[in-house]
Amino acid sequence: MCFMRYACGVEYDGYGFLGFQIQIQEPTIQSCLEKAIAKVANQPTRIHCAGRTDTGVSASAQVIHFDTDVNRSEFQWIMGINSSLPQGISLIWIKQVTEDFHARFSAIQRSYRYVIFNRWIRPAINRHSITWEKSPLDVEKMNNAAQYLQGENDFNAFRSSNCQSHVSIKTINFIAVRRDDNYVILEVAASGFLHHMIRNIIGTLLPVGRGEKPVSWLKEVLEGKDRTKAGVTAPPNGLSFNTVKYPKEFNLPEGSIPSQYSEHEE
Amino acid sequence: MCFMRYACGVEYDGYGFLGFQIQIQEPTIQSCLEKAIAKVANQPTRIHCAGRTDTGVSASAQVIHFDTDVNRSEFQWIMGINSSLPQGISLIWIKQVTEDFHARFSAIQRSYRYVIFNRWIRPAINRHSITWEKSPLDVEKMNNAAQYLQGENDFNAFRSSNCQSHVSIKTINFIAVRRDDNYVILEVAASGFLHHMIRNIIGTLLPVGRGEKPVSWLKEVLEGKDRTKAGVTAPPNGLSFNTVKYPKEFNLPEGSIPSQYSEHEE
Repeated sequence: MCFMRYACGVEYDGYGFLGFQIQIQEPTIQSCLEKAIAKVANQPTRIHCAGRTDTGVSASAQVIHFDTDVNRSEFQWIMGINSSLPQGISLIWIKQVTEDFHARFSAIQRSYRYVIFNRWIRPAINRHSITWEKSPLDVEKMNNAAQYLQGENDFNAFRSSNCQSHVSIKTINFIAVRRDDNYVILEVAASGFLHHMIRNIIGTLLPVGRGEKPVSWLKEVLEGKDRTKAGVTAPPNGLSFNTVKYPKEFNLPEGSIPSQYSEHEE
Repeated sequence: MCFMRYACGVEYDGYGFLGFQIQIQEPTIQSCLEKAIAKVANQPTRIHCAGRTDTGVSASAQVIHFDTDVNRSEFQWIMGINSSLPQGISLIWIKQVTEDFHARFSAIQRSYRYVIFNRWIRPAINRHSITWEKSPLDVEKMNNAAQYLQGENDFNAFRSSNCQSHVSIKTINFIAVRRDDNYVILEVAASGFLHHMIRNIIGTLLPVGRGEKPVSWLKEVLEGKDRTKAGVTAPPNGLSFNTVKYPKEFNLPEGSIPSQYSEHEE
């Protein structure tokens, strides 16, 4: 059968959704997207994503792909799908790709951001998209500790007990913790991530930031490869999936907020 | 009777509240604050604010004051009040002041921010705290047009028909429009504002940004002093009340996110 493959960028607010992946409970990002696409395609449509996100986790540029034998212009797809999606999900671009493209398997790098709001009084604004930490955090120590994770490592100590991956070796290309006023922000880019890996890294960096553990603790936990020795899993709220990188030949938009009108294209 | 006067900084997410001022419909910011303070003070307590905000408008540092004859430490006030407030409101500081302080009448400058999300596709993230504009905006033109409003002017053209102010002369100390990726941000500081003044300014700047009106239109509207000649009132969503300035002798915190732990104190 002859079909076309489309790749799409998807922005969503994780608050109010039970994660990306389709399951019995509703709503999930996948179920909403598949229903909206099916409505425009007039046929059931399965989607594949670059990286599944947990309940409460947002994405500024998740990438999905789907196959269809229906002819629609890119403008028709984007308008039709968005008009059938709930307000918390937006399709931000769509592009026809060759059939060797796969949203998950073609991806060569994924970037996430984790935002901690660091003030002794709880946040009222943006409270669903940040994690609140009331003890003062030493960001320099957190950043120094995070550097132990850079490069190719066995991240077994940082994966969830439910993680289904056969191997626990991943490559972190970039990791940094910085402060912007009351916000403490972790940025991390890797070939891929294990289940709960970023939330477990945050959970291990927090005791360092609070001064309860030394900077070298991260090295110790990493090398111990024992999940029970790492910190507790941090809440999903602060986490967002930002960019997915694919080989240049696919020529796809990359970045958190691609814009037709932006003065500063990412 | 002997009483103490307290000034407080209040952060709130306007989404889910029917504006600041108490009224028959609930919830309002004022009613939530008065109930929470009454609980800690064990007596009915009236509050006064620096500036009333409309339904859906947020504040990162609204200032209020109240009088009480009850003895509580600042820590007790802050913990007690916050534990009785809904999640969308936080008391961020409290400080005893002299009785010549008045949150509204002592204020010498108020600053607001208005955030427009400028992309042809609707936003999924932060959608309750931004106004969506799908046509590309020329920010330089908007900023140039806004400069006509700087200084002492009669802002009659920009006030709501419900505005109860006897005079319509206000002084804008600072006004600027800038772009940060897809976000177009207006910052404005003035002695005070008329009802709907900022939303009407935005509603008049938008046609300039879209190229439908010339930059000089702002001057024309301002000088015409006729509300019917200005643009439509922009939605409340993008608006937030940021800082209130008082004479130095009151020695109050100023700024959107005062922090005990910030590296960069405002």
